[in-house]
Amino acid sequence: MASPEPATPADLAARIKARDRRALARAITLVESTRTDHQDQADALLEALLPATGAAIRLGISGAPGVGKSTFIEAFGLDLIKRGRRVAVLAVDPSSKLSGGAILGDKTRMADLARDANAFIRPSAAGTTLGGVARRTREAMLVCEAAGFDVVIIETVGVGQSETAVADLVDMFALLLAPAGGDELQGIKKGIVELADLILVNKADGDLAAAAGRTVSDYAAAMPLIRPPSAGWMAPVLAVSALEHRGLGEVWAAVTRFRDQSGTARIAARRAVQAVAWMWNEIDEALRARLRGSGPVAELLPSLESKVSQGVMTPGRAARQALGRFMAAADGT
Amino acid sequence: MASPEPATPADLAARIKARDRRALARAITLVESTRTDHQDQADALLEALLPATGAAIRLGISGAPGVGKSTFIEAFGLDLIKRGRRVAVLAVDPSSKLSGGAILGDKTRMADLARDANAFIRPSAAGTTLGGVARRTREAMLVCEAAGFDVVIIETVGVGQSETAVADLVDMFALLLAPAGGDELQGIKKGIVELADLILVNKADGDLAAAAGRTVSDYAAAMPLIRPPSAGWMAPVLAVSALEHRGLGEVWAAVTRFRDQSGTARIAARRAVQAVAWMWNEIDEALRARLRGSGPVAELLPSLESKVSQGVMTPGRAARQALGRFMAAADGT
Repeated sequence: MASPEPATPADLAARIKARDRRALARAITLVESTRTDHQDQADALLEALLPATGAAIRLGISGAPGVGKSTFIEAFGLDLIKRGRRVAVLAVDPSSKLSGGAILGDKTRMADLARDANAFIRPSAAGTTLGGVARRTREAMLVCEAAGFDVVIIETVGVGQSETAVADLVDMFALLLAPAGGDELQGIKKGIVELADLILVNKADGDLAAAAGRTVSDYAAAMPLIRPPSAGWMAPVLAVSALEHRGLGEVWAAVTRFRDQSGTARIAARRAVQAVAWMWNEIDEALRARLRGSGPVAELLPSLESKVSQGVMTPGRAARQALGRFMAAADGT
Repeated sequence: MASPEPATPADLAARIKARDRRALARAITLVESTRTDHQDQADALLEALLPATGAAIRLGISGAPGVGKSTFIEAFGLDLIKRGRRVAVLAVDPSSKLSGGAILGDKTRMADLARDANAFIRPSAAGTTLGGVARRTREAMLVCEAAGFDVVIIETVGVGQSETAVADLVDMFALLLAPAGGDELQGIKKGIVELADLILVNKADGDLAAAAGRTVSDYAAAMPLIRPPSAGWMAPVLAVSALEHRGLGEVWAAVTRFRDQSGTARIAARRAVQAVAWMWNEIDEALRARLRGSGPVAELLPSLESKVSQGVMTPGRAARQALGRFMAAADGT
């Protein structure tokens, strides 16, 4: 990964707002950097960009491996570009370290979309914690908005905790499914259906068309039993074929209907709540990292965890011991 | 609330194991106390009791207000006692401060059960945070187990976060519903169905019997679409009438089938994971409380939250500022 070239945050911000793609890529590399001096520059850059952010529709898309997420996002993205939109695609995938991960890190998997001047695709930020990966994606999203992308798609794999993190980043959360018999599980994590503002059954083509129809009916029947994540909006269940580029107009119609029904004020209020929650997430995560990283606590933790899991020490006493050790170390004693 | 009389933890532990009800009540008052000296005594008491814990079935029961939770728990508890069981009922209800809360704090609501020598009913611990209330309930559960109660029921209201906390305390989590048309929401929180190992439709009596049957069918049809919280176990959906004491044997049969199918080793492994997660919950909560309670940070927080929610400061920078202030204060500078 190229190190960001020297450029003042103000300079970089101006170039991003002028839609300079190299500046955009460099800015995202900067916000993804873990170097302390880069972090300060990233903060300054983001604050210069903040007034230019917020105009995009932020759409999360989750689905288990094999449901055709990449194919769908590429087809949907190309369809949006035809409608005059500019589309950024970011990913949250904490399993993506240096190589691999559930979401492939290279752009070749969405080659046609990646090649389009009105699209920008960025693989998942690297990182060891979900919170860290999601934070960097959130900041990359802001940079993309400042660069004039008016639809930001954040994709994730619905098999861990990452879909909750993504739902907390976006205005609307869509779940992509493959056709399956009503009595089959979809390999998706429990609770994920309840995060969804929109359910899409992909592969509604060829041999799977009938099964897709049944899956749509099954989910449509189940949705009234589930309290919707966004008040007053019951998640529509739609059949799509990413392969044959069918149903994409209906997806976009559902997204715009959701945005219009929510209204600007409610979306702004939701984003404000999300931002404060993010602040607290970061505080919690940083505190925990400091505690774990404290030498005296790190020495103690394995024995505490072992005693607690064997049931010979209460979690409460173990927590107080870890905390006492941490605060004593912070005091410099 | 009476202050615990002086008694060594070892003495108190011996009396609890001898099933002395006064000692039991006193011990729970001790673990619920927030006084630091009581906390040390409670830790010592719990560690003396830990070897005598673990033999009970830990059952969580959640349901929205009005579904008949108290009536059901009383009927079910009396039924269990007839089967030779000893039943403790605890509650997690963070809205219960001094007066009221969603779960009534007095024992009169389960008068017959409360009067039985083989039952013990304790209202929700008081507290300002869910984590604190749940921790004290967890410790009260251990005390009850040491006192020979072999079914511990932990009830909560399924309208907040508390059902997740309870699911993390118990072996099996049951959701109690009222009959409703398939297209009606149950006033329950999104995601709660996905926590359930068992779904009970109460009020299957009189005018509501037919509606209860339909609700059972609706949920039974939806369950295959939902990944079960416990691998290899699809939540049964049962009709019960707490009023007419019908269906209670089937509920107990489902509970014992769940326990037998899970096996002792898997339940022990799940409890070990729960205990370590509890330790980390307590660490996180204590760290956050210390940060919020730090004078210099408390001064700064309102302005940080306001800037973040207005979108003029990034959550990341705000978090770093709060944390920097906290660590500087801990350093004594």
